[in-house]
Amino acid sequence: MSLLIVGSIALDTVHTPYGKVEDAVGGSAVYGAYAASRFTPVSIVGVVGDDFPARELRSLRRCGVDLEGLERVKKGKTFRWGGRYFEDINQRETLYTELNVFSDFAPKLPDSYRRIPNVFLANIDPDLQLDVLRQVAKPRLVVCDTMNLWIDIKRPSLLRLLKKIDCLLLNDEEARMLGDSASLTRAALKLRRRGIERIVVKKGEHGCTMFGPEGVFGAPALPLAAVKDPTGAGDTFAGGMLGYLCGRALSEANWRKAIVAGTALASFCVEDFSTRRLRRLDPKTLARRCDEVRAMMQVGNV
Amino acid sequence: MSLLIVGSIALDTVHTPYGKVEDAVGGSAVYGAYAASRFTPVSIVGVVGDDFPARELRSLRRCGVDLEGLERVKKGKTFRWGGRYFEDINQRETLYTELNVFSDFAPKLPDSYRRIPNVFLANIDPDLQLDVLRQVAKPRLVVCDTMNLWIDIKRPSLLRLLKKIDCLLLNDEEARMLGDSASLTRAALKLRRRGIERIVVKKGEHGCTMFGPEGVFGAPALPLAAVKDPTGAGDTFAGGMLGYLCGRALSEANWRKAIVAGTALASFCVEDFSTRRLRRLDPKTLARRCDEVRAMMQVGNV
Repeated sequence: MSLLIVGSIALDTVHTPYGKVEDAVGGSAVYGAYAASRFTPVSIVGVVGDDFPARELRSLRRCGVDLEGLERVKKGKTFRWGGRYFEDINQRETLYTELNVFSDFAPKLPDSYRRIPNVFLANIDPDLQLDVLRQVAKPRLVVCDTMNLWIDIKRPSLLRLLKKIDCLLLNDEEARMLGDSASLTRAALKLRRRGIERIVVKKGEHGCTMFGPEGVFGAPALPLAAVKDPTGAGDTFAGGMLGYLCGRALSEANWRKAIVAGTALASFCVEDFSTRRLRRLDPKTLARRCDEVRAMMQVGNV
Repeated sequence: MSLLIVGSIALDTVHTPYGKVEDAVGGSAVYGAYAASRFTPVSIVGVVGDDFPARELRSLRRCGVDLEGLERVKKGKTFRWGGRYFEDINQRETLYTELNVFSDFAPKLPDSYRRIPNVFLANIDPDLQLDVLRQVAKPRLVVCDTMNLWIDIKRPSLLRLLKKIDCLLLNDEEARMLGDSASLTRAALKLRRRGIERIVVKKGEHGCTMFGPEGVFGAPALPLAAVKDPTGAGDTFAGGMLGYLCGRALSEANWRKAIVAGTALASFCVEDFSTRRLRRLDPKTLARRCDEVRAMMQVGNV
């Protein structure tokens, strides 16, 4: 069962204490696609300018990513983001955001995409996320990511969207903001009472917490000695989680395993700049890392 | 097998968004003792003034806590701490610290304490921790807590002490400080290379990470909707962990279970002010909470 991803496709310039890349491929749809394609065929909806490197498109296709829904704007410039991470690699500042072709993006699904059963609405304007969802015939699983900006300026659209999804992904600060509570747990419970079945709170180096109908699941992130570039880790996590779920029953047990898979993939993402580590990841190494993440959480009866 | 605890015994005045207590019993040795006494007999070394309520001593004794090593200073004033927690209950400020009788504290172990095999050196001056350890005949298990202050002003004593212990407990900021690295993982690995066998990094609402000879263990904290007062949670965690290990083999599996026990006890600690919730905790409720913490971490093969 394949996965539809709508999100940003970007050229990122990133400085970290461990180096720098300029105009390297990035964006939520790209990170999500590289991760999800480990488990399932992926179809991307998005937009790039004609400055977007053809080799990056070939690389995505080689991973089983369908780009029929990728709009290429002639004489357009691809969305660009620049950021700098500090010595504490969990802290960053945005240096610039150039929307470029993304500012007029109106996602339009090719016919072949409309019956894709699984949908990842990566972090973009909730009105666009709603647009995409309207074009999907019968979604089986819809996961939505969002951010503080949309909670702030597009809350009504976001709340409308949240009624139609199976799982909301956001970070802890955003969960507190959307759930109107300084307590993460209260915020998550409030959001669940508003009808969101499942909330996965991403906490970066602290892992994630899933609040679902069968209770809470807490998964630590894998402690890594060498984090080079955290960009895209959250989207990689989401892509891995969703990809894992595509061919499987949506049981609590599988959601938990999906989080382990996402955690493992995210741990590779941050080991190098851009999508470098993700694209040269072999299946055995991924399987071993999944085992490692799981082993880190194993405990017997007390 | 019993447990020796050296640490502070305090009267705390605590404001949180959910209320206030004045001169309520607290201190690392007290929280640690209430938690550990769930699993093992506890002996405290510490000091109080004659203003310390007799009923609090009776309450500790009822829980199986031996107070022969408790010094009572006539006309002395007990150590006092005042603090305020903010709306984000993970943030606090210290309003005052009055050392009082604690400023001249020179821990002296009664003969009956010298052969106690398990030792919890709660967070006090590392020179005092060393003093206590010298008086113990043949320790089987020594766990040491510390804080930024001692890392800052008593680093040589602390490093001397760390050669003699089995496990160091500290928070993530302190681990980064002591291990001289912005990366928690690098810092922990560096500390292990310096000869500390096991490091348990306490991360408050994010749980803890244990770096040991058999790898890493990550345990989330139980997400709680109602945190009234986080004071003493770390000491309660430590006491529960150590108490659990006292009668058991020091295997990786048991260290992990001990962390679950500590996590469960800490989750009760924060549900009410001071030691209120801990002292009226029945064994069945504790067992259920341990199961709950463990269930939160369960995941199958990916």
